[in-house]
Amino acid sequence: MVKNVYLDYASTTPVDPRVLKAMLPYFSKKFGNTLSFHDKGAEAAEAVEKARKQIAKIINAKPSEIIFTSSATEANNLAIKGLALANKNRGKHIIISSIEHDSVSNTADWLRTQGFEITKLPVNKNGLVSSKELEKAIRKDTILVSIIHGNNEIGTVQDIKLLGNTCRKNKVYFHIDCAQSFGKIKIDVEKDNIDLLTASSHKIYGPKGAGLLYIKSGILITPLFHGGEHERNLRSSTLNVPAIVGFAKAAEICWKEKNENKRLSKLRDKLITGILKKIPHTKLNGDLKNRLANNANITFSFIEGESLLLELNLAGIFVSTGSACSSPKLEPSHVLMAIGKNAEDAHGSIRFSLGRWTTEEDINYALKILLKTVERLRKFSPFKGKS
Amino acid sequence: MVKNVYLDYASTTPVDPRVLKAMLPYFSKKFGNTLSFHDKGAEAAEAVEKARKQIAKIINAKPSEIIFTSSATEANNLAIKGLALANKNRGKHIIISSIEHDSVSNTADWLRTQGFEITKLPVNKNGLVSSKELEKAIRKDTILVSIIHGNNEIGTVQDIKLLGNTCRKNKVYFHIDCAQSFGKIKIDVEKDNIDLLTASSHKIYGPKGAGLLYIKSGILITPLFHGGEHERNLRSSTLNVPAIVGFAKAAEICWKEKNENKRLSKLRDKLITGILKKIPHTKLNGDLKNRLANNANITFSFIEGESLLLELNLAGIFVSTGSACSSPKLEPSHVLMAIGKNAEDAHGSIRFSLGRWTTEEDINYALKILLKTVERLRKFSPFKGKS
Repeated sequence: MVKNVYLDYASTTPVDPRVLKAMLPYFSKKFGNTLSFHDKGAEAAEAVEKARKQIAKIINAKPSEIIFTSSATEANNLAIKGLALANKNRGKHIIISSIEHDSVSNTADWLRTQGFEITKLPVNKNGLVSSKELEKAIRKDTILVSIIHGNNEIGTVQDIKLLGNTCRKNKVYFHIDCAQSFGKIKIDVEKDNIDLLTASSHKIYGPKGAGLLYIKSGILITPLFHGGEHERNLRSSTLNVPAIVGFAKAAEICWKEKNENKRLSKLRDKLITGILKKIPHTKLNGDLKNRLANNANITFSFIEGESLLLELNLAGIFVSTGSACSSPKLEPSHVLMAIGKNAEDAHGSIRFSLGRWTTEEDINYALKILLKTVERLRKFSPFKGKS
Repeated sequence: MVKNVYLDYASTTPVDPRVLKAMLPYFSKKFGNTLSFHDKGAEAAEAVEKARKQIAKIINAKPSEIIFTSSATEANNLAIKGLALANKNRGKHIIISSIEHDSVSNTADWLRTQGFEITKLPVNKNGLVSSKELEKAIRKDTILVSIIHGNNEIGTVQDIKLLGNTCRKNKVYFHIDCAQSFGKIKIDVEKDNIDLLTASSHKIYGPKGAGLLYIKSGILITPLFHGGEHERNLRSSTLNVPAIVGFAKAAEICWKEKNENKRLSKLRDKLITGILKKIPHTKLNGDLKNRLANNANITFSFIEGESLLLELNLAGIFVSTGSACSSPKLEPSHVLMAIGKNAEDAHGSIRFSLGRWTTEEDINYALKILLKTVERLRKFSPFKGKS
């Protein structure tokens, strides 16, 4: 029997059948353009405004503060470029961490070419950003701090309340990328002093093609898309009604069922313990305590992560090296390098990410295959120093 | 019986059931991230590359020249901002027509604030751009000409081959916005000298959330989204696989069934003739011959288009004033003003746009209701000079 053990939920998730069911009427029946003045338009607009309310509630935002985008990447670009361009008269210095998703770090790198200065904050060996380091890095001309909430590769979750306070105290805008944490970890944009927040639909069993940027009232942003003035003129483009309806449904389910985190972290810990105990020369990456419930990132020394990935694939187990988004690159993961790994160990690391349909049987199977495969690959390993 | 006569296909279209059927497997089953290195990723990547080929063929482009976006608005922004930013060393002058969609004209207006110079070419009373006027407007520092192919409001279709030749001769890049024409009117990017082309999925019975920009090989573009380097690093963001599969299927159906244009233009002409013959003080806007098969834009003098729209809505007939995208605005349509209408007549204009499910019965019903409604509204019209 062909196995199908998907352990790559951090890359993308299947759409939950309940979500798809909620979306279906909006493709061919309630298909209107939200800006049309007739009943067909109103029907679509009502669905979007209902979705906006559902989602705003989860992070304690006002519905008018939610701007729907096509993805988290778009939202991160809108947050960072948009804020930078609209606020450059106040200063041209931006702080990010050294473990950001490419959609933040490459955006910051591009802003550098446009005359902005970027500071990439180091993190400790578990991937945590220090609020003291952050405070030291803030300058008079700093306009924005952007930090990833739950890291997409190593799963480390930052203390956003502490970092948010530091930013607020120093009068600097604070953006968090919650692509991996939204709907799973409690975030209160008011209490946590969050000015901008990115979330994604397809990481929480919603459809691809939907994301959002929360923008606190009063913050100036230059749009990425000019046009028909949708989304309070911050994101022109016909609204993707079925995807937005699906995103809201997915967020609602995720939030209602957040006890699922307990089940996942139990399975995750079983996987981590199983690997560390039974396979020599393995190490967990990221913080043990402050960690996404579904993430296990492991370094298997003396092997190529990619070879392991391909062997697991043959056994019907689907995992990632680094983030899916940076797969075409040959450079070692900048996140693993930032927590002090050398290039060799970074290349020997695998991310397992669990999800709604991961079972204990899946974990047992993965452990069994891993044990065999790592042993076999190490026999052919070109690396020195192996046991 | 409640009528449901949708005559607003230019705003958005229902997803064709055949398209939805093609999309469905990609939500919950073949749900992978195209950049994942395992079979789940490969399955998704194959679907996207198949879609890219299907679509490229329709306009005689190479698959690698197609960049998928979330919408035509995004594609227009990417084309114009992207080309402007990447080529500003060559010049900072851009030419557009005065009847562009807001996603082109507002983008150009924004570039003006960034130090670019914009020329908005006038059109004749039918909405046609003159290649001679274009040639006169081209300067040494002109880098781009952007013209809408089939106008979204008045339906006028430009002679892109002639305009393309003029641009090529003068070594200026030529972008066309084909949101309303792609899949319906033959375009050959090679023969027509097109450098950049925008298309939309939800205007051709595909899903919302998909668009594309054709970028001729070798043209430099600065991306709007930086990140994981998807789409040849021109549009980072997880690919919206179901939407892209649906877009390609929709384009294929549209292209195979392009004889449908004959049926539509017959129904359109019946509507136009019916209105012009039976309702006094009405005029067709746009070119009679060079016209989208599904567009009828009519000025009903001495009434408010919005009042007529609302009355038609009550009778179950769904139409637009101007484009749906600019509905929230109170200013008269810039397209109607550009073809010489006064503000009063511009406000009294209605766009009827027909589509795949429009029947002769629908047109008969619309004509009957229009006759009654226009007569009644004119009785209460505040405008002077009415008959």
